[in-house]
Amino acid sequence: MTSRYGSSTDETYARAGFGATVHRGARPAIVVVDLTNGFTDPAAPTGADLSDVVAATSSLIAAGRAADVPVVFTTIAYTDAEADGDAVAWLTKAPGMRALREGSDAVAVDPRLPVDRRDHLITKKGASAFFGTTLASLLAGLRVDTVLVCGATTSGCVRATAVDAVQSGFGVLVPRQCVGDRAQGPHEANLFDIQAKYGDVIDVSDALDYLSGLAARESAAVAR
Amino acid sequence: MTSRYGSSTDETYARAGFGATVHRGARPAIVVVDLTNGFTDPAAPTGADLSDVVAATSSLIAAGRAADVPVVFTTIAYTDAEADGDAVAWLTKAPGMRALREGSDAVAVDPRLPVDRRDHLITKKGASAFFGTTLASLLAGLRVDTVLVCGATTSGCVRATAVDAVQSGFGVLVPRQCVGDRAQGPHEANLFDIQAKYGDVIDVSDALDYLSGLAARESAAVAR
Amino acid sequence: MTSRYGSSTDETYARAGFGATVHRGARPAIVVVDLTNGFTDPAAPTGADLSDVVAATSSLIAAGRAADVPVVFTTIAYTDAEADGDAVAWLTKAPGMRALREGSDAVAVDPRLPVDRRDHLITKKGASAFFGTTLASLLAGLRVDTVLVCGATTSGCVRATAVDAVQSGFGVLVPRQCVGDRAQGPHEANLFDIQAKYGDVIDVSDALDYLSGLAARESAAVAR
Amino acid sequence: MTSRYGSSTDETYARAGFGATVHRGARPAIVVVDLTNGFTDPAAPTGADLSDVVAATSSLIAAGRAADVPVVFTTIAYTDAEADGDAVAWLTKAPGMRALREGSDAVAVDPRLPVDRRDHLITKKGASAFFGTTLASLLAGLRVDTVLVCGATTSGCVRATAVDAVQSGFGVLVPRQCVGDRAQGPHEANLFDIQAKYGDVIDVSDALDYLSGLAARESAAVAR
Repeated sequence: MTSRYGSSTDETYARAGFGATVHRGARPAIVVVDLTNGFTDPAAPTGADLSDVVAATSSLIAAGRAADVPVVFTTIAYTDAEADGDAVAWLTKAPGMRALREGSDAVAVDPRLPVDRRDHLITKKGASAFFGTTLASLLAGLRVDTVLVCGATTSGCVRATAVDAVQSGFGVLVPRQCVGDRAQGPHEANLFDIQAKYGDVIDVSDALDYLSGLAARESAAVAR
Repeated sequence: MTSRYGSSTDETYARAGFGATVHRGARPAIVVVDLTNGFTDPAAPTGADLSDVVAATSSLIAAGRAADVPVVFTTIAYTDAEADGDAVAWLTKAPGMRALREGSDAVAVDPRLPVDRRDHLITKKGASAFFGTTLASLLAGLRVDTVLVCGATTSGCVRATAVDAVQSGFGVLVPRQCVGDRAQGPHEANLFDIQAKYGDVIDVSDALDYLSGLAARESAAVAR
Repeated sequence: MTSRYGSSTDETYARAGFGATVHRGARPAIVVVDLTNGFTDPAAPTGADLSDVVAATSSLIAAGRAADVPVVFTTIAYTDAEADGDAVAWLTKAPGMRALREGSDAVAVDPRLPVDRRDHLITKKGASAFFGTTLASLLAGLRVDTVLVCGATTSGCVRATAVDAVQSGFGVLVPRQCVGDRAQGPHEANLFDIQAKYGDVIDVSDALDYLSGLAARESAAVAR
Repeated sequence: MTSRYGSSTDETYARAGFGATVHRGARPAIVVVDLTNGFTDPAAPTGADLSDVVAATSSLIAAGRAADVPVVFTTIAYTDAEADGDAVAWLTKAPGMRALREGSDAVAVDPRLPVDRRDHLITKKGASAFFGTTLASLLAGLRVDTVLVCGATTSGCVRATAVDAVQSGFGVLVPRQCVGDRAQGPHEANLFDIQAKYGDVIDVSDALDYLSGLAARESAAVAR
């Protein structure tokens, strides 16, 4: 299948040794990036209608529960000092993010998602869920080997999180229906880059099969 | 000017508060990402003809010298244990990078670049020049406020470095002619994302003016 | 003056090239480590009477205000998932820290400290104020060059923060009266290590002079 | 048993919930901190006679080989730009470390240690083996759960590495005979802190038993 950039680019990438298949480990985690009201409410300036992404991610989480897969939600949230000042360099380039204040509704996880008390919540200040957070430590502490990245936006925090996940030592899987963006062009361009260089972009049905397989294996082990 | 994704995307991004102008500080550094033979030699599987990028970056460095701007080169280089084993997750997805061995010609900075003994060299293992390196510490130690990102590839290590530079507290400028890629589509898509969210994509002439301005101010201060 | 370990150790350290004097920059920040109720309330299991430390730190902050010195408070605070689970490795070794729950009184900054709305608050999960946080990025964004480390405990989070501060590119000063511990032995042993290897352990009067000097210089610059 | 600081300190620490026992996982790694000539050659200004530490660490590595335990060596090594300049803040406080130049004999691993081609080598610029390196990513990529910290010096790089190892999500074990220092006082003070707060300080015979247990289990699994 030819990619969005045509066969010449595909050949160049094949020659450079990109796009190999990621090993799916026995201990995945689901990382749900920024599916907070500020991003999933179309009325919010930084938001978009991500109902399908929320639904697909919810189904993935449900499948993960059966296999005891850890779930980590992330949110971008700033203190008043951060939101009103100049200390956070990113807020100079992307001032729209200043609206994401600690304690506000905008930074709460979208209530349509099935959050559980055992789920982790990572508060971040930048694009990547790993940058300036303990996410890598948490995943190491949970003995995770593979990260399923969901959430928003594909061209921003999802991309940055996928890059950092593989740099942090984890196999990366991105179920296509579980990630979304404000605009289709950047969404697709970033899925191309992720598939080529950082993780496998897969169908959500494939991701669900992977998780059911783990759940079945676990049940069998218990039954033995 | 309408962007590559059309006016609807542009409006969505404007509403989300992206694309503001970066403050240009009094103390920039030039970070030259992976302009090593493995990337600049078209004969290398991971390489491309980046002669124009090397030339533009060389002119930027020359202008920086006059203003005592610190220059940092980066290289991707693996030990035999890393290149031959499974410990580095990224090498599973991008096995072409396994060829970049410590001590080999592929990991040496392209000899067309004007490297000076006082320049820093950061050896990295992933896409970002900041990940798993002391680059952020070095820039803080040098009291840098702004990072000019040059090098290759736009859709890989340059993008990852720009994201981490702004997350690390620095204003980010990307002189368009100083970055390059194996293919035009991903190059342009990533310049769009960088300009919207992480740093200012500017003309190299603009970057040269910025550096000459600093050099002039410095001479004036010495003369006083 | 002979140190707590005797002249033979002092000679060994001098030969190894330790204990040089830190340069005091024009742009310091005050980092107040974990002066939260859980550490300053003697009734808390993890607490101790640190009234003198709180008082000395308050006077340092007051002096800093006159020179527009940024102030950063830190707190250790865990989500329920972190406090009740096994994902945070440190909580296995130091289970007493599990009591430090988000939203509880134990994780609030001691009300005797003069917290201002422009002050930053860093929530951390480990010993170091830098680990898994954006503190280094924040300090870089604030163009800080020197860090005055205050707080508790000297043998735990203060030591870890001092080590990471110098590793992150900042000169480190520890005003002796502004740090405290649950027990005198570990307090003094760690001040020895910090003075030898990571920062200057100084008298609070010296630190106050440093900050007044900056304030005076700033007033003079404004008057000119 | 009363500690070096007496029973009152011991009671305070027990009340604060320190000193719990670390879980020993199924997948340990051995991290050998800075057993390079610059630290193990008594003639080097920064060195000391650590022959016993080298011998004990060698026996631990040998036991680890039988259980396929990954081994990571670290070295401090600076480029000329780093060693001669002011960018690395730590070198201002500890200028003796400037002698540790890339490519010099001082930064090579002590030849008495049984280094294998599959072993990892981490080059670091600060005290902690984790800071500004990919060690955490490497350990995650190797699916490690427990870190055995060996090397020098107890009061410097070993301590900093132990703190970062537990912060990074790993259980920490420090075999007493496998770590050493230039002076006895700081050595013992830091073992006290590590045992209280960061990892279990154990006898090397205990560590050897742990590794033989893993090797036996592995052989049994293969035989089945």
